[in-house]
Amino acid sequence: MIPIITAFESSPDRGRGLARDMRVRWALEEVGQPYDVRLLSFAAMKEPAHLALHPFGQIPTYEEGDLALFESGAIVLHIAERHGGLLPDDANARARAIGWMFAALNTVEPPIVEYVMTKLFECDKPWHAERLLVLDERARKTLGQLSHRLGDADWLDGTFSAGDLLMATVLLRAKAAGLLEGFPILSAYLARGEARPAYKRAFAAQLEVFTAQLSS
Amino acid sequence: MIPIITAFESSPDRGRGLARDMRVRWALEEVGQPYDVRLLSFAAMKEPAHLALHPFGQIPTYEEGDLALFESGAIVLHIAERHGGLLPDDANARARAIGWMFAALNTVEPPIVEYVMTKLFECDKPWHAERLLVLDERARKTLGQLSHRLGDADWLDGTFSAGDLLMATVLLRAKAAGLLEGFPILSAYLARGEARPAYKRAFAAQLEVFTAQLSS
Repeated sequence: MIPIITAFESSPDRGRGLARDMRVRWALEEVGQPYDVRLLSFAAMKEPAHLALHPFGQIPTYEEGDLALFESGAIVLHIAERHGGLLPDDANARARAIGWMFAALNTVEPPIVEYVMTKLFECDKPWHAERLLVLDERARKTLGQLSHRLGDADWLDGTFSAGDLLMATVLLRAKAAGLLEGFPILSAYLARGEARPAYKRAFAAQLEVFTAQLSS
Repeated sequence: MIPIITAFESSPDRGRGLARDMRVRWALEEVGQPYDVRLLSFAAMKEPAHLALHPFGQIPTYEEGDLALFESGAIVLHIAERHGGLLPDDANARARAIGWMFAALNTVEPPIVEYVMTKLFECDKPWHAERLLVLDERARKTLGQLSHRLGDADWLDGTFSAGDLLMATVLLRAKAAGLLEGFPILSAYLARGEARPAYKRAFAAQLEVFTAQLSS
């Protein structure tokens, strides 16, 4: 059974791998599971057929036989539970790795997304410059705490896990927004993630969508 | 083995049950697991002993023998995996319930928290009123999508699950901020959660911390 995921037909990031389908592609590549992709226009994402799969009208979704899932974190956890390689066998280490999955998405990502969204979409607002400073400080505080915890370790808790995978994709967005400057530990951590063969295959696959569209 | 969780010694919400320890208390009450609580001052949350448990200096944490966890979502999932009653037995239904856990924390909570934080902590900023309107619209869009999906169902996907538990605690924060006005479906859904005996026991336990401090 080949799972089907959804992704942007026309990614706003122009193939830089910042959209959330990248997380699912990377997880599937790590565990060696082939997959198909259904590309969606922004209009199609708001239509009833897609809203039945994803009530908030976003990507990615994941379909595998009778199962339909949304939320990139839940999809990555589902893949990690069905296949080896993304969660430790030891029960306590497994619970901690899942803890880092939630930390990536619920603690580290929100201030980064808020900074990015404000930078991009509120540049015509009178509050733009002053508010961006507030958000920059908030995001860097969280990144500083993450850097302090990581220290000289390669990964967040022992071997590479689904927690590292999600955290790296969150840091990709921070890097693209210039927020990783001054955090050499996090930059090196992200580089280790980007150096993984599975990451490279996933990145190439999403970039292919962008380049194919350019030449069509 | 009785797990130990951490909570605010002096909760900023004055016992209204909006802090994230409420999620963990509720989950433990649902599964009938007794627990101990270690209360922390704001100063203690930033000390090395607590930062070793929680790198971002927040509550709650969860300690059970050799296992130490942080992130309320991960703790609730750990409890749900170790005990019956918070996740369906069917594998696909279980994956969807975990999907709602991530949706509550990664899709629904961020715009609500952003609205609440702006309302509380940026009232001296020149952008306050105009920005609050933007955030109000953003939060209500997400709440509207959630309401549409819920429709006339009692719970998000079949029987009550850890996904409903987390979603209800997120909606508690929305309600406290006035964001549930105009969403009768979500108000009734939240009321069903608040009517559960386990919720009431958890709420009483966190309120007791506040009232005990008042009388001390």
